[in-house]
Amino acid sequence: MKQYEVFELVFHGEEPEKSHVAVQLEAEFILNGTSTAVKGFYAGDQTYKLRYYPREAGTCTWTVRSSIPLEGKLCGEAQCTAAEAEDHGMVQAEGLHFHYENGGRYLPFGTTVYALVHQEKTLVNQTMETLHKSPFNKVRMCVFPKSYDFNHNEPELFAFEKTDGKWDVNRPCFAFWDMLEHRIRELREMDIECDLILFHGYDRWGFSQFSEEEAMVYLDYLLRRLCAYPNLWWSMANEYEVVEHFPKQWWYDFAQFIHENDPYGHLLSNHNFLQFWDFADKHITHCSIQDSNVVRVPEIQQEYQKPVVFDECCYEGNIMHPWGNLSGFELVNRFWTACVMGGYCTHGETFLSEDEVLWWAKGGILKGESPKRIAFLKSVLEELPGNLEYSKSLLETAYEKGGIRLPDDSWLENAMNMIGKELHEVSAVRAQGHFDKERVILGHCGEAAYLRYWGRQCAGQGELELPDTGAYDVEVIDVWEMTRKKVMEGVKGKVTVPLPGKEGIAVLAKLR
Amino acid sequence: MKQYEVFELVFHGEEPEKSHVAVQLEAEFILNGTSTAVKGFYAGDQTYKLRYYPREAGTCTWTVRSSIPLEGKLCGEAQCTAAEAEDHGMVQAEGLHFHYENGGRYLPFGTTVYALVHQEKTLVNQTMETLHKSPFNKVRMCVFPKSYDFNHNEPELFAFEKTDGKWDVNRPCFAFWDMLEHRIRELREMDIECDLILFHGYDRWGFSQFSEEEAMVYLDYLLRRLCAYPNLWWSMANEYEVVEHFPKQWWYDFAQFIHENDPYGHLLSNHNFLQFWDFADKHITHCSIQDSNVVRVPEIQQEYQKPVVFDECCYEGNIMHPWGNLSGFELVNRFWTACVMGGYCTHGETFLSEDEVLWWAKGGILKGESPKRIAFLKSVLEELPGNLEYSKSLLETAYEKGGIRLPDDSWLENAMNMIGKELHEVSAVRAQGHFDKERVILGHCGEAAYLRYWGRQCAGQGELELPDTGAYDVEVIDVWEMTRKKVMEGVKGKVTVPLPGKEGIAVLAKLR
Repeated sequence: MKQYEVFELVFHGEEPEKSHVAVQLEAEFILNGTSTAVKGFYAGDQTYKLRYYPREAGTCTWTVRSSIPLEGKLCGEAQCTAAEAEDHGMVQAEGLHFHYENGGRYLPFGTTVYALVHQEKTLVNQTMETLHKSPFNKVRMCVFPKSYDFNHNEPELFAFEKTDGKWDVNRPCFAFWDMLEHRIRELREMDIECDLILFHGYDRWGFSQFSEEEAMVYLDYLLRRLCAYPNLWWSMANEYEVVEHFPKQWWYDFAQFIHENDPYGHLLSNHNFLQFWDFADKHITHCSIQDSNVVRVPEIQQEYQKPVVFDECCYEGNIMHPWGNLSGFELVNRFWTACVMGGYCTHGETFLSEDEVLWWAKGGILKGESPKRIAFLKSVLEELPGNLEYSKSLLETAYEKGGIRLPDDSWLENAMNMIGKELHEVSAVRAQGHFDKERVILGHCGEAAYLRYWGRQCAGQGELELPDTGAYDVEVIDVWEMTRKKVMEGVKGKVTVPLPGKEGIAVLAKLR
Repeated sequence: MKQYEVFELVFHGEEPEKSHVAVQLEAEFILNGTSTAVKGFYAGDQTYKLRYYPREAGTCTWTVRSSIPLEGKLCGEAQCTAAEAEDHGMVQAEGLHFHYENGGRYLPFGTTVYALVHQEKTLVNQTMETLHKSPFNKVRMCVFPKSYDFNHNEPELFAFEKTDGKWDVNRPCFAFWDMLEHRIRELREMDIECDLILFHGYDRWGFSQFSEEEAMVYLDYLLRRLCAYPNLWWSMANEYEVVEHFPKQWWYDFAQFIHENDPYGHLLSNHNFLQFWDFADKHITHCSIQDSNVVRVPEIQQEYQKPVVFDECCYEGNIMHPWGNLSGFELVNRFWTACVMGGYCTHGETFLSEDEVLWWAKGGILKGESPKRIAFLKSVLEELPGNLEYSKSLLETAYEKGGIRLPDDSWLENAMNMIGKELHEVSAVRAQGHFDKERVILGHCGEAAYLRYWGRQCAGQGELELPDTGAYDVEVIDVWEMTRKKVMEGVKGKVTVPLPGKEGIAVLAKLR
């Protein structure tokens, strides 16, 4: 047994007579005095398994209880050894950000391959190789296959077998789950989080037509099998509203069920088509969002006080749909915009291809220009001393507090107070439009670093308000050319930085 | 006397004893039986003038009445000759578009030089030369000088003289008005409309602090002197809310006064900072808008049923302010977006300059990359057989009608109806964001031409629904490279057009 690694007990016994899911098999693991109740599952071939995720090094004992006659010892003890330094355990949410269980920062730089596991093996292998070389450390993928434009192929395996021509959730397809687990483990070896999508509506097979009871049986099996894997996140849906057959209440019920049956508390969210999910729900750990307006990170942070991940902000590509034909620059621009304000963004790619293999759904190879720029952004953020926190603009403060006082610039004070006041009088659409346009995209790590991004503004100079104490070195960053140039050394207070007057420019000021 | 040209009567008499504005001098002109009452004005130097704008060829008689003893004949008669073919008279609004008085189409392609007439003569001359070579056929400029960043210079002349150190609206500065008229006439010679801004708030001299009575005296003089010029539009304000001293009601009062004192009904609007003016007001002829979201042309057309002109959608340049550092491409993109949907856009340019001469306020020369692309767009629109009308998308129809039925594509019908329904359930901000993102930027001239623009979408192919009868030739237009390439001939019905997969692409289908 090793800290942060799946510990598995395997037993042999007769195949269950009724449901292959609701088997009476559970265990209590006690690690350094902390007890964890674990449910086992039937894995086919007269094999039962119980999986446990040990969070600490120390002494662990367990006791298995089963109504099924099993061969072998039903209790045991092991020394759980400490994880290697490079194994950092599960990702957890805290405040507006994420961290690994061992305390290290985790900055999600995800990508999207919805039907990753539903492709032929050679293609899946190629996708894994591509991911390995990519900057991405999270992948959004579905349990159920996808039916949509460019997704007409039939998968070899499905999550369940059929009984009388109908999916039988009590009869999991073991080959499918073995395959799925294999891919999850491969991702873990590459240090990639698997943001597993449990339901979605792009379906021609009937998985989106489950009754709530069927859905719960499926979730039961999924959690028994998978929840000991540390690199899993639960994304209840891709576009929950598109699963039209599911009433809204079910998603709350699913979250409750997952909460009760996932002893490790994996990250949990629900991704929208139009209407954000109720991220205020206590079981939701972070905001998983579809929206192009990534400039609204601050509003969403403020409303939910949870990490904000734009899991769908449109894709780099050239298909007809407006969500799938961003330029490489525009996707990079959205990443910078969200990340500088302490939010996060997820990549996707949709280039027309004769073989209909588009990365966003099927994987394969990456063709776009954004991934290497995303890697560059990741390197900039990783070298910061901490996570970025959004810095409110004068206008936002004037708006929220009903006015500001400035020491020596009465013109600016006046203007901000006038606009702040008028913003309360105009429609929400007008006000939001103004905040979007005027947003100062600025984040900071305490007083140690300030990062400002100008987006599509072609400013020839830019201002930065640094603390009046300390000495800062200032770099101009070209997010597309991936260059960094030091332009000032040892400065403090309000500085005017010369900028090249083009799109995609950021400025980083770091305390010496 | 000539149709569409200012006809002027000049009289000599003693300087008015009291107000130089409220002089008792008026005339009745009767042209082909149509009577027009005209007020005269004192022009300084013991000179009084009456100006009349004849709209038709024919026989004209006039009678002057005055309480001031004047030298010369107080009644007369003249033959009004027909205008030359190239003189098309005043611009008028009709439906969502504009036309000249002689019936010709007028497509406003404006630019902004707020403090044009408040610069030194050599600079104003240079601005006029630049305008002459430019594609612009409308210029927004202020009567009062501008005080703001890059606008610290003191003009030589102001609209009024001072009495006891205070502006005296009853004592116009005749040299100023002569100079202003000279520039308006120069613009007319270049076929450029002068969108004259009557008030604004960027003021350090006190013109924005007038009482309502003072404002009305000023308007009285302005209308007596200027309203016979055909190439004038009245823009009551630049950013009316920024003139904080003026209560909202005054703007209604001004519009009423202008209506009563401008016998020719020049175009009239009021330009906003944040909150659109009440364009539903019966005296307002068109929507003069400040907003970056030019993609909302259809919503504004639908609400007001008047022409929509984005008179401020931000400027090409590199200054610090987010409204003044668009790339050339982005400004061109906004023009195409607005124009293809039957709206209009106004140019402006703000490049940092050591001499503080920025085109947007002071004129001079144009440095940007957008003007020649705007000229290209203008040429594309001018060759169309008529004005463009926005084509509603399926989604908009589904949203407005509560559902659509499609003949053979139940998947699409389903999707549109589902999204249309959800759009009613989400917040106005979310719904507007979705419409903005999914907007199909498509206009048509009856069935004679269809023009679709993809904006920043990098589509590799695009669809066009043409009528099932007729034969259309289809061109792909690169709005930045200014190229047009015929890609299909004689097609009809639904066509899929191969596109280059880059930003700034339009497709024009014209009936043979």
